[in-house]
Amino acid sequence: MSETMDPRVGDWWRSSIIEMKPGVIRYRGYPIEELIGNVSFAQMIWLMTRGELPTEGQGRLLDAALMSAVDHGPQAPSIAIARMAATCGVGLNNAIASAVNVLGDVHGGAGEQAVEMYEAIAARIDGGMPLAEAICAGLDEAIAKYGKFVSGFGHRFHPIDPRAPRLLELVDAAAKAGYVAGRFAAIARGVEDELAARKGGRSIPMNIDGATAVIYAELGFPAPLARGLFCLSRSVGILAHAWEQTGQGGRNKGPMPREYLWTYDGPSQRPVPASHHGV
Amino acid sequence: MSETMDPRVGDWWRSSIIEMKPGVIRYRGYPIEELIGNVSFAQMIWLMTRGELPTEGQGRLLDAALMSAVDHGPQAPSIAIARMAATCGVGLNNAIASAVNVLGDVHGGAGEQAVEMYEAIAARIDGGMPLAEAICAGLDEAIAKYGKFVSGFGHRFHPIDPRAPRLLELVDAAAKAGYVAGRFAAIARGVEDELAARKGGRSIPMNIDGATAVIYAELGFPAPLARGLFCLSRSVGILAHAWEQTGQGGRNKGPMPREYLWTYDGPSQRPVPASHHGV
Amino acid sequence: MSETMDPRVGDWWRSSIIEMKPGVIRYRGYPIEELIGNVSFAQMIWLMTRGELPTEGQGRLLDAALMSAVDHGPQAPSIAIARMAATCGVGLNNAIASAVNVLGDVHGGAGEQAVEMYEAIAARIDGGMPLAEAICAGLDEAIAKYGKFVSGFGHRFHPIDPRAPRLLELVDAAAKAGYVAGRFAAIARGVEDELAARKGGRSIPMNIDGATAVIYAELGFPAPLARGLFCLSRSVGILAHAWEQTGQGGRNKGPMPREYLWTYDGPSQRPVPASHHGV
Amino acid sequence: MSETMDPRVGDWWRSSIIEMKPGVIRYRGYPIEELIGNVSFAQMIWLMTRGELPTEGQGRLLDAALMSAVDHGPQAPSIAIARMAATCGVGLNNAIASAVNVLGDVHGGAGEQAVEMYEAIAARIDGGMPLAEAICAGLDEAIAKYGKFVSGFGHRFHPIDPRAPRLLELVDAAAKAGYVAGRFAAIARGVEDELAARKGGRSIPMNIDGATAVIYAELGFPAPLARGLFCLSRSVGILAHAWEQTGQGGRNKGPMPREYLWTYDGPSQRPVPASHHGV
Repeated sequence: MSETMDPRVGDWWRSSIIEMKPGVIRYRGYPIEELIGNVSFAQMIWLMTRGELPTEGQGRLLDAALMSAVDHGPQAPSIAIARMAATCGVGLNNAIASAVNVLGDVHGGAGEQAVEMYEAIAARIDGGMPLAEAICAGLDEAIAKYGKFVSGFGHRFHPIDPRAPRLLELVDAAAKAGYVAGRFAAIARGVEDELAARKGGRSIPMNIDGATAVIYAELGFPAPLARGLFCLSRSVGILAHAWEQTGQGGRNKGPMPREYLWTYDGPSQRPVPASHHGV
Repeated sequence: MSETMDPRVGDWWRSSIIEMKPGVIRYRGYPIEELIGNVSFAQMIWLMTRGELPTEGQGRLLDAALMSAVDHGPQAPSIAIARMAATCGVGLNNAIASAVNVLGDVHGGAGEQAVEMYEAIAARIDGGMPLAEAICAGLDEAIAKYGKFVSGFGHRFHPIDPRAPRLLELVDAAAKAGYVAGRFAAIARGVEDELAARKGGRSIPMNIDGATAVIYAELGFPAPLARGLFCLSRSVGILAHAWEQTGQGGRNKGPMPREYLWTYDGPSQRPVPASHHGV
Repeated sequence: MSETMDPRVGDWWRSSIIEMKPGVIRYRGYPIEELIGNVSFAQMIWLMTRGELPTEGQGRLLDAALMSAVDHGPQAPSIAIARMAATCGVGLNNAIASAVNVLGDVHGGAGEQAVEMYEAIAARIDGGMPLAEAICAGLDEAIAKYGKFVSGFGHRFHPIDPRAPRLLELVDAAAKAGYVAGRFAAIARGVEDELAARKGGRSIPMNIDGATAVIYAELGFPAPLARGLFCLSRSVGILAHAWEQTGQGGRNKGPMPREYLWTYDGPSQRPVPASHHGV
Repeated sequence: MSETMDPRVGDWWRSSIIEMKPGVIRYRGYPIEELIGNVSFAQMIWLMTRGELPTEGQGRLLDAALMSAVDHGPQAPSIAIARMAATCGVGLNNAIASAVNVLGDVHGGAGEQAVEMYEAIAARIDGGMPLAEAICAGLDEAIAKYGKFVSGFGHRFHPIDPRAPRLLELVDAAAKAGYVAGRFAAIARGVEDELAARKGGRSIPMNIDGATAVIYAELGFPAPLARGLFCLSRSVGILAHAWEQTGQGGRNKGPMPREYLWTYDGPSQRPVPASHHGV
């Protein structure tokens, strides 16, 4: 149904997400009063971003991906920023904003890049290429585009990221139950094997981004939404840390204690040249 | 357990939310690999912000509050900003940030202010004041602090906000089942009655913020977290609209079609005074 | 002149800052092509926020306030955030946004609070109160409102903030030349004296915020614009640090080296209760 | 001079912008107390981003570029967002942040893209290619990378952007005075000619972004800083509009009057399927 709510504005803003009239709110056609009590937060996230309701199995898998990536501690720039912002006298909404804002290509984009790589491999297979060859080609393409650290694999802190194998178990169970095809789990494991082979057997295991990317790809989310969903997920940790920091009452806390300063490597002291005296 | 991970930094950053060692991630003491598959996204939000896991009934009520407030269309500044940002060539994370950032006192604070009012009324009752009197006093205090439009009641667009009665039904059911006390539902309904009495019988019904505030208060969330939780909830609509707009491909879209400009009410054209010629 | 550019939109957006027609841009009535080459960046900042052009003396004093507060190093949360953001793969505009966003009451509000205090003292003097008494009363009021650390005085790092005396010299020179009245410089010095007297002679000297607040008050800027102007000023340091960090090529740098973690003081490891097994 | 301020942190954060000790602040080696009163805001912006002080002529040209791009009215997403944010109960710093944040590739990147194109043309000339050929090749490359609307040329609202010719006059005067080489002005005019030739004589004149890009290129700023400097410039208009809107007292103003809604083009009303009853 297409309905221009005011003919003067035409389709300047156009949406199929929400329809409103006085007393009426419908998301994707469903009256809000019917959704409330029947649809979970994770299912609502699916409905809003995809247009249809997920099956229960799909909704549970999405839920697991969302709940698994909420936090990685104040060493992560996003969480550190949330805590610093909280000490600067801004609202929780502002602390969340400053923090979510940095979930860009480097800090928040690994899931998106992994979905891209998985899909590119799947497209090659659909085009008739054998699995092993498609994985090699997809991996090479990802490395050419994003550099030698393959998004979704390896972790600078965890030898094995404890979240990844558990999420893969859930994907396997969902595949067995027929909720998802299991295709992207196979591709991701193939990538893991190929990476190990290239490193002479040293494992570079899947991390949280590689594992949630498997889930998002299995569920049919386009790659850029993997970043969007990560933002929703990480917002939870961001909120929790901003709130905890608020309770601790620090004021204007920088990244390190005052006595630990930075290295200055610029010019030694020098006078302002006489030519600059008088603005 | 208190453990300084590096004695040189002492407790510069201190957290009871997350503990990490290589290969180990624990939220509030629970290993992440045990939480995955067992705890929903809404329950995780509770654990992260409150420190303990909710009961199933508590988790479901929180879930309903979160899923009910995800969107109110592009007329809301937050959603409009998300869509505009999407046309400006920034990432989904940036669009979310610019939008969540404006969920301040006016646009995002109604729930927080309603929880505050409910709690102030409850505190008066705890102090021995009769319900009706406590409501009057709490209402007067809220009006004195935030103005005549009482946060959580009345809506400039919806005569009756369809989300509020449905959420209250869920609270009633949860109270009947013993998951919550039902105390704040009674207080909120008392506020509604008092407002109608003051308006000579014209109803100023509870809106989404008043209803989710009942839930947050019943569940024991401190008032500022009501705003934090609203940010998580509205982030979903923000993401959905930013993503939809991205797909529509608009470039640099302002708030209105180009031909609808603003009213200029400043000085008529005038020359720069000679005294300013030459910077 | 008031001109509704489209009668259908009426005065939904109304501005006296800028007027536009095809080929025409006028700020506050002045054609842009006449302003260019005749008006400096600092004078433009004045015109845009105040509505009229400053005299040359006023413009130079504003310029000095703006150029003096651009940076205080990566220990300041705003600068640290800019640098972290730069390592996260977001644009310079995003890095600036995340950083400026935290210039709230605590990190960016001292100038605003100092202007408020100076103005409250001036208002008392205008009402007939003697200077010393007005200073005492204004100081007490500020302490009651914002706490014992008086905004604009004292510094946790610098025994004497080298920027403050130099800025006051410029105010004195401008007062002597008749560009400003010098009233707020006298008030601020009175505050400094009173603070020292209260501390038994231990000086709590004016800092950058107290000194720029003198300038902003002398020039007639309302208190909230003191924060706005500080945001413009600090944006320069924010940009410079984000850009420098970009050149250093760090990826995803947190607030401290990886090996320096935070103190965890939450619960020891514990199993997820059986009641939560199965979402 | 390289000085690790604390050996334990090594060069985790490293900067040549600012050096601090108690009582000492030096930007790029210059003591702040010497800079104050001798160096303008625009010169300080140069010093902070480039490392050295500009000559007076360079500083004046930079100043003109900065002051000329401060505002383009509430039709621009950045300005609209600033005004909306101001109606949502957030601080001026937050309004600036949400607005500056959207100055991405599409809304804020034209200057950067134009500098890139000019530099690519200059590099071809340096490599021995004749001017006309180098312009053609540079133009084709820019179109291939960013699309058919060439950044810096043409305007959807102004047939002739009144800012561009005036800025070019300043560049010409500076070239005549020997402050700049004038090379990029010639390149940009060549691009203008080539574009007109390709359109059968219909002019697609240089706009503000094309003209400020000439200045930034003449002054030796790397392309990404063109965006950074535009953020500083536009922040002025953003602040002015946020402040004006604050004074108008609107609350929670969306992009258009309430009665002008968006076009809904999603599914008609439909019931939530029975399979989703009960979360």
